Amino acid sequence: MTIDYPARRARLAAALPAYQVPALLVTNPVNVRYLTGLVSSNAAVLVGADGTALLATDNRYIDKTRALGLPAVEAPDVVGRLAAPSVGIEAASMSVATFRRLGEGLVPLGPVVEELRAVKDEGELDLIRTACAITDQAFADVLPRIAPGLTERAVARLLDNRMTELGADKPAFDTIVAAGENGAIPHHAPTDRELRAGDLVTMDFGARYHGYHADMTRTVCLGAPAAWQRDLYDLVARAQRAGRHALAPGAEAKEVDAAARGLIEAAGHGGHFRHGLGHGVGLEIHEDPFLGPSRTARLEDRVPITVEPGIYLPERGGVRIEDTLVTREGGPELFTKTTKELLVL
Amino acid sequence: MTIDYPARRARLAAALPAYQVPALLVTNPVNVRYLTGLVSSNAAVLVGADGTALLATDNRYIDKTRALGLPAVEAPDVVGRLAAPSVGIEAASMSVATFRRLGEGLVPLGPVVEELRAVKDEGELDLIRTACAITDQAFADVLPRIAPGLTERAVARLLDNRMTELGADKPAFDTIVAAGENGAIPHHAPTDRELRAGDLVTMDFGARYHGYHADMTRTVCLGAPAAWQRDLYDLVARAQRAGRHALAPGAEAKEVDAAARGLIEAAGHGGHFRHGLGHGVGLEIHEDPFLGPSRTARLEDRVPITVEPGIYLPERGGVRIEDTLVTREGGPELFTKTTKELLVL
Repeated sequence: MTIDYPARRARLAAALPAYQVPALLVTNPVNVRYLTGLVSSNAAVLVGADGTALLATDNRYIDKTRALGLPAVEAPDVVGRLAAPSVGIEAASMSVATFRRLGEGLVPLGPVVEELRAVKDEGELDLIRTACAITDQAFADVLPRIAPGLTERAVARLLDNRMTELGADKPAFDTIVAAGENGAIPHHAPTDRELRAGDLVTMDFGARYHGYHADMTRTVCLGAPAAWQRDLYDLVARAQRAGRHALAPGAEAKEVDAAARGLIEAAGHGGHFRHGLGHGVGLEIHEDPFLGPSRTARLEDRVPITVEPGIYLPERGGVRIEDTLVTREGGPELFTKTTKELLVL
Repeated sequence: MTIDYPARRARLAAALPAYQVPALLVTNPVNVRYLTGLVSSNAAVLVGADGTALLATDNRYIDKTRALGLPAVEAPDVVGRLAAPSVGIEAASMSVATFRRLGEGLVPLGPVVEELRAVKDEGELDLIRTACAITDQAFADVLPRIAPGLTERAVARLLDNRMTELGADKPAFDTIVAAGENGAIPHHAPTDRELRAGDLVTMDFGARYHGYHADMTRTVCLGAPAAWQRDLYDLVARAQRAGRHALAPGAEAKEVDAAARGLIEAAGHGGHFRHGLGHGVGLEIHEDPFLGPSRTARLEDRVPITVEPGIYLPERGGVRIEDTLVTREGGPELFTKTTKELLVL
């Protein structure tokens, strides 16, 4: 899979006249990677409306720029090296301190490159598909080992290790494992709490592969589920299905959210689902577009996105079910293949 | 170990009059954690010169604020909720976009909280000491498994897994394993290159423990070292020792750097050591103070810091040796206990 970085820079160059700047000084490391292929913690690239590009990075990364096929300069102060009057800058990633030091004539702009990144090419979708396949496989491999007595931390470690063994760069984010009452906390960090019979256990995890992210959540039950656990699970599964089916190019983000949220509200659990329905994934684990009650953006074709409703009952526990999919004309393609039946271990 | 967060906020409150602001709006997530104990990706705290504090975070984290002992409000826009005219802000972490949206009357300030964080209390030093002990132990446990045929990625995985098994939150940063010619790249990311007899293998890794970071590097040799490998190793080890011995409260950062660098330059390898000698560690893996040829800050007592000279020979390989220590009156305390003799595997 060869990524066509010059084509990405050409798309950016073509977009710049609308912003009335002769060039964009790109400083967000993810955007620098997207446009040049350079992975670093200190680099910037100046892309001109005329199609030229100049990369700057420090001595730690300068050797890696040789194979990238664009001119590069070594500078400890990468932003200062490239800043010039009337050039656009990324206002969401440049700090106030840097802007005050160099801002003379710089033009703060919004998410110019992020908008280019939202719609993925098939090469990117292949990478996300692989990241999701690694995530599915890790779950399948770890599932037989999940049992009472194991701690949340131990389960998280098993998932993380298996993903990297299967070829992940690393986990896509800090893995969540939440057992029993901890399942009521959407962003619970794994503890030494041991899994017990009767627990619902929520696992939210994913692989990063060549920089691209997968995101998946499953809630399983240790032993036969109580009626309330079964009911909660079925409700979340129905909401998740409704959300997936609402995903389509042209759909408004809040409509997709409402398709799932409406079912949860109708069941009297609206107050127990206090986050958005999903988010885009790509070179970042959370990126545009976001699905939520006040989100008015319309989805486009070839946008990878999660659908992840959850219900969280304080002191008792919770259920969340999450897939990564991609919008397609004719219906979304499901990247996360693991069953959404309630797994009873 | 109980951390006294109110005492930290009191130190900040006492520092504010010098900046001529009635309060500081703290938005850097690490600084929010330092002052309140809240670990989140979206929170802010307003600390007044009068000693008051108000925390804001979104619905994902609001439940975690209950145990923190300070008033907290839920707001999706945490900065907007707390911003007020004449209040100081952290210019290095606030984005230009946020500042343009809310900046009316806000006063950009430098690293106010970072300066408070540089000198650690004994509770923090205990955590860093433990992080370093986990790192040492992981290295000792993995060492017998390092052998020709294993890939760089596999070695990194072994180290990462062992650190988390031993109680680390997670690896402190992306582990570096660089074999043979890859050792010439200071920030090499592990690949599928297999280790071979005759390789120098550099491993740069560390544990994070309760948010605090360890940082350690060792270069080992697979099989009997060639003369050039032995000579390179001995030179780096002597430079590392000289750097450690120069660490003292009151020393200028560039003097410490020069103590090590001078030996490397005298041996004709100045051009092969192109990074600073070390950096502070704490809640961040790289924080003030930094040791480098142009760094004029003076070290204080109780400052954890790395000493990590390296020599990198293009196409051939490299050696780096790194410990984490803490400055003390009477001489630094060494946290990294692993031997610095050349290990021949």
